[in-house]
Amino acid sequence: MRKVSFERNFSKHAEGSCLVRFGDTHVLCTASLEEKPPAWLRNSGKGWVTAEYGMLPRATGDRMKREAASGKQGGRTQEIQRLIGRSLRAVVDLSALGEKQITIDCDVIQADGGTRTAAITGGWIALHDCLKWMEARSMTKLDKVLKDHVAAISCGIFAGQSVIDLDYLEDSAAETDANFVMTGTGGIVEVQGTAEGAPFSQEEFLSLLALAKAGTEELVALQKQAITA
Amino acid sequence: MRKVSFERNFSKHAEGSCLVRFGDTHVLCTASLEEKPPAWLRNSGKGWVTAEYGMLPRATGDRMKREAASGKQGGRTQEIQRLIGRSLRAVVDLSALGEKQITIDCDVIQADGGTRTAAITGGWIALHDCLKWMEARSMTKLDKVLKDHVAAISCGIFAGQSVIDLDYLEDSAAETDANFVMTGTGGIVEVQGTAEGAPFSQEEFLSLLALAKAGTEELVALQKQAITA
Amino acid sequence: MRKVSFERNFSKHAEGSCLVRFGDTHVLCTASLEEKPPAWLRNSGKGWVTAEYGMLPRATGDRMKREAASGKQGGRTQEIQRLIGRSLRAVVDLSALGEKQITIDCDVIQADGGTRTAAITGGWIALHDCLKWMEARSMTKLDKVLKDHVAAISCGIFAGQSVIDLDYLEDSAAETDANFVMTGTGGIVEVQGTAEGAPFSQEEFLSLLALAKAGTEELVALQKQAITA
Amino acid sequence: MRKVSFERNFSKHAEGSCLVRFGDTHVLCTASLEEKPPAWLRNSGKGWVTAEYGMLPRATGDRMKREAASGKQGGRTQEIQRLIGRSLRAVVDLSALGEKQITIDCDVIQADGGTRTAAITGGWIALHDCLKWMEARSMTKLDKVLKDHVAAISCGIFAGQSVIDLDYLEDSAAETDANFVMTGTGGIVEVQGTAEGAPFSQEEFLSLLALAKAGTEELVALQKQAITA
Amino acid sequence: MRKVSFERNFSKHAEGSCLVRFGDTHVLCTASLEEKPPAWLRNSGKGWVTAEYGMLPRATGDRMKREAASGKQGGRTQEIQRLIGRSLRAVVDLSALGEKQITIDCDVIQADGGTRTAAITGGWIALHDCLKWMEARSMTKLDKVLKDHVAAISCGIFAGQSVIDLDYLEDSAAETDANFVMTGTGGIVEVQGTAEGAPFSQEEFLSLLALAKAGTEELVALQKQAITA
Amino acid sequence: MRKVSFERNFSKHAEGSCLVRFGDTHVLCTASLEEKPPAWLRNSGKGWVTAEYGMLPRATGDRMKREAASGKQGGRTQEIQRLIGRSLRAVVDLSALGEKQITIDCDVIQADGGTRTAAITGGWIALHDCLKWMEARSMTKLDKVLKDHVAAISCGIFAGQSVIDLDYLEDSAAETDANFVMTGTGGIVEVQGTAEGAPFSQEEFLSLLALAKAGTEELVALQKQAITA
Repeated sequence: MRKVSFERNFSKHAEGSCLVRFGDTHVLCTASLEEKPPAWLRNSGKGWVTAEYGMLPRATGDRMKREAASGKQGGRTQEIQRLIGRSLRAVVDLSALGEKQITIDCDVIQADGGTRTAAITGGWIALHDCLKWMEARSMTKLDKVLKDHVAAISCGIFAGQSVIDLDYLEDSAAETDANFVMTGTGGIVEVQGTAEGAPFSQEEFLSLLALAKAGTEELVALQKQAITA
Repeated sequence: MRKVSFERNFSKHAEGSCLVRFGDTHVLCTASLEEKPPAWLRNSGKGWVTAEYGMLPRATGDRMKREAASGKQGGRTQEIQRLIGRSLRAVVDLSALGEKQITIDCDVIQADGGTRTAAITGGWIALHDCLKWMEARSMTKLDKVLKDHVAAISCGIFAGQSVIDLDYLEDSAAETDANFVMTGTGGIVEVQGTAEGAPFSQEEFLSLLALAKAGTEELVALQKQAITA
Repeated sequence: MRKVSFERNFSKHAEGSCLVRFGDTHVLCTASLEEKPPAWLRNSGKGWVTAEYGMLPRATGDRMKREAASGKQGGRTQEIQRLIGRSLRAVVDLSALGEKQITIDCDVIQADGGTRTAAITGGWIALHDCLKWMEARSMTKLDKVLKDHVAAISCGIFAGQSVIDLDYLEDSAAETDANFVMTGTGGIVEVQGTAEGAPFSQEEFLSLLALAKAGTEELVALQKQAITA
Repeated sequence: MRKVSFERNFSKHAEGSCLVRFGDTHVLCTASLEEKPPAWLRNSGKGWVTAEYGMLPRATGDRMKREAASGKQGGRTQEIQRLIGRSLRAVVDLSALGEKQITIDCDVIQADGGTRTAAITGGWIALHDCLKWMEARSMTKLDKVLKDHVAAISCGIFAGQSVIDLDYLEDSAAETDANFVMTGTGGIVEVQGTAEGAPFSQEEFLSLLALAKAGTEELVALQKQAITA
Repeated sequence: MRKVSFERNFSKHAEGSCLVRFGDTHVLCTASLEEKPPAWLRNSGKGWVTAEYGMLPRATGDRMKREAASGKQGGRTQEIQRLIGRSLRAVVDLSALGEKQITIDCDVIQADGGTRTAAITGGWIALHDCLKWMEARSMTKLDKVLKDHVAAISCGIFAGQSVIDLDYLEDSAAETDANFVMTGTGGIVEVQGTAEGAPFSQEEFLSLLALAKAGTEELVALQKQAITA
Repeated sequence: MRKVSFERNFSKHAEGSCLVRFGDTHVLCTASLEEKPPAWLRNSGKGWVTAEYGMLPRATGDRMKREAASGKQGGRTQEIQRLIGRSLRAVVDLSALGEKQITIDCDVIQADGGTRTAAITGGWIALHDCLKWMEARSMTKLDKVLKDHVAAISCGIFAGQSVIDLDYLEDSAAETDANFVMTGTGGIVEVQGTAEGAPFSQEEFLSLLALAKAGTEELVALQKQAITA
């Protein structure tokens, strides 16, 4: 696993924020609180946590067209932001949050593989800090709303071997590529595995799952360290 | 598993087509051949297989806004069509296809859960028939291009029990929901598992995988029957 | 005139639905009831009937770009859906309907000329069945709202002769092409005639109108048969 | 019929231009020559004539949203510009034009009913003057390319009587509203009739057609006068 | 400075309107009154004045793509309409206007340089006439709302000399190009200077400012004449 | 003036990059080289320098809607990116650059007033480093292409006093707000002054210009220091 770090309070304005680094992959996660939930949750007593994802045009080796300029978010962007939102909501009690909305913006400043797993892992920190900010203002109880940690890691089979936290080069060459989202208590929240070349077997998949379990445990430990720092 | 059927040659114009039914979920899959590949594959000697997915506005219980009218494809649509394309390409030899493109359109005529798994399973038939059409015109060799079957099924944990091929009601109520895409030889091509409520354990996941294995075997048997009919 | 058939209740979910076939042209028409009218009719006591039209990408001989993917509905699509809506409203008493909205979605599953006329003719069946569904729930009186039948047919001059219900090949080669929308009592609701080649004379136009009158009478007879089946 | 006038050479830059007035309806028509045809006509030896239509936001009694700001052309706009293009092409020999494109922009400066008929009638003048401009530069032969006049007029049944060239108030109140596009030799190019209230009969339609015939004859006479002025 | 003229009441429908001509640059300015302010000013007691800008496709030497057809307003359009709105608001007391909105549409009928300065100068007339129209209906007090004149002129350095009111050719060739918006009492509202070639000095800039001062004084005198005509 | 710093080589992938800080305003500027110029410069022997501007949604005190999600770049964004591009091109010899394109992306990570001036000043560093990178690969001569420094600063009148480098609070309250873009040799490239409240006088404007002159001199000195570090 590459060196992972969390730089909290990276942003002056956001209720919670964190620059997360997985090696050369750097993602800025900010949490923005809105006092009212989305329209379809009005008068439900429940709140919502959602995520948006973006990449700076030159976060990557070749410059990518700016999505704001091309007039729409690509399929990959939408897929990733939906995944981040679902992953974070898996550990949130939306009734305990009450009729509010928290938006986690995950913007990739620099990309080197694993941007979605970094975004989920760092997004949890931003969400945590936002809830803490709210608790300090008696707006909510952090430990009622946030039920557990959530962290994510990619694993893959590369040159016949199971590897964890693939960087861009490994990812491009991997035969199989899987993303795992897991809670602090080891539950699985999301599993997404794709055979890039030949299909994979159940055994291969289980070896990746084992790697991911160890990896997310380590990430959760780092999250715990970060929020008590 | 619900009753599954394939109605081949449903469309007069397409090079291959199939109306696939998984219970009350009905998806029309058509394969359209284009004589040249996408721009980024020109002069590469390789072809491409891609998929598009859509839903008629009243395929569902409540009418959904027409995507053409709202001016963009939603995140869910893009996620599904990317999945269908990847799944089909996993069993295609793009070099053997040569510089051509086959587009598989999967349009949901009626929805009752499992539209993406039906689309992949029926899309394979449309693709097969398109390649057969090409073989009849000496444009390609079907068995060189299409290396294996591919089929997909959803499994979930519903009321504490593992169930297969969830309909809309089961899907809405499921605690965990996973889609599996597997080949005729039992290899895994895609795994997508999501905890809707509580996170799930490795054991639960393995029970779903076992169900999916049996289910896709049955689907592949039905595909074989269909293409020899 | 090609063989015309109506397959009612084609869709499990819609309040009214009909797969209409004019030869190889197959259009799925569904009626969706909404409990409130569009914003500009609030508190007017009146309801609204509107239509949307779409074509599956491979309904045609060559695959057409999916409108949802290109991000807008083309001019032809908008022209047709406006025509369908106007035609159906011509036989509806919007005050008797009350503050509700019925949307008729007409999706072309397979095209071989005359999709707009099939859509109007089949759309009437879907609308009828929706109103019947509402009557069964004491929401309205079918015969107060639906004042008459409406049906449509294309006529043209092809190789110097007046022909009715043109298929794609005839339509492409026709010198003159006209669509007629008429009621069950023989009133004209819409006339749209276009000279594709040389302008046409009043006499030619009257010969088309005569053909259309006979054709729509036959279509209305078939509608009557269908709704009493 | 309201007072009709043509102000040629209204625009300094266009190859042909005309401000046409039908009473208080004022439409600026400009013809723009492009040295190459649209992509789908390359190497065909043929050219193309097309039209675009727009309305200034305050051309109407109530300000309408600017289409450029709302990000798309409405259905009505597209319907009208397709009609104008078809009408003008009906009197043009595209092979004689050769591989060029002429775009007729019809922009409504002030609207009071009949904008589409004014646009067709004035668009013909702009097209004529563009071809004359080309002839002066030995780029084409005007009388080879432009085979006839084309003019358009609206007729309707209003308060039980057939009326011609309806202004906005008449148009809003008309029971039936039809637009006729006719050539200088009396041929019919387009007919579009719509029952706004009750369906209309063949007799009513024929009375409108007779009115239109007289009206377009008068318009053609005015066009002749204008181009020889 | 080129010949400047104002043709008031150019439009039958608008509450205020003016066709302004700066030489061959002709801009139609209309003022449209709405009885309520934009949403963000509800219950503030204040009103709003805003502007939109457009160009007919063939207002220019080469035809430009219609913004409604390309689906968005370009950067230049947005920049100009923001400038017009700011400039007019600089002389309006929005509290005295009360909760209403006036939209100034500036549509370029023919362009020959200086369209934005003509639009501001003529837009002031349209705004004035709209307020006068309101005063006549006891809706407002013209002289409470409209505190001063505002007019705009371009100046530039062309072939080493300071010139005023550049036409298209001068503008294309100018080394430096600046737009000045000034009030009737000589205050500066907006200054926008751009070095097209070499950077300019403070002295050069002051010479342009002096020219602009004289020019806007003249324009204000012409405005005064126009509104008393 | 707030504390200004340049962090060069902030991005691993870009040919030149710089995180510029003007107090709490932080903008990431990256330069991306493309081997061919935009289409309209093919075969001209000239290259192009362009800029794009964006803001992370929570760079500001209140979260702003992501432009990629709303489907277009706002007017303010387009205005700013056009300004950055013009400013940088003012000190570039496009013929010496040759047929290449350099895109400067300026993304605001955190905003506190003056983002456009920071972007221009930091964008110059990114451009410089990109040209240096090219020089190291014998692709160009840095000092032939980059003719001078360019830097920008905002000045305003706030509480009756001229102030420089306004932060968000000062900017919101300023009576007058002007942005100046100047070269290393003191030439003016762009001037944009706006009266937010009362119009300003020539004297006030000159006092701002004097401040700006001193400010940009200081910025240029800091740029020199940075590129030799």
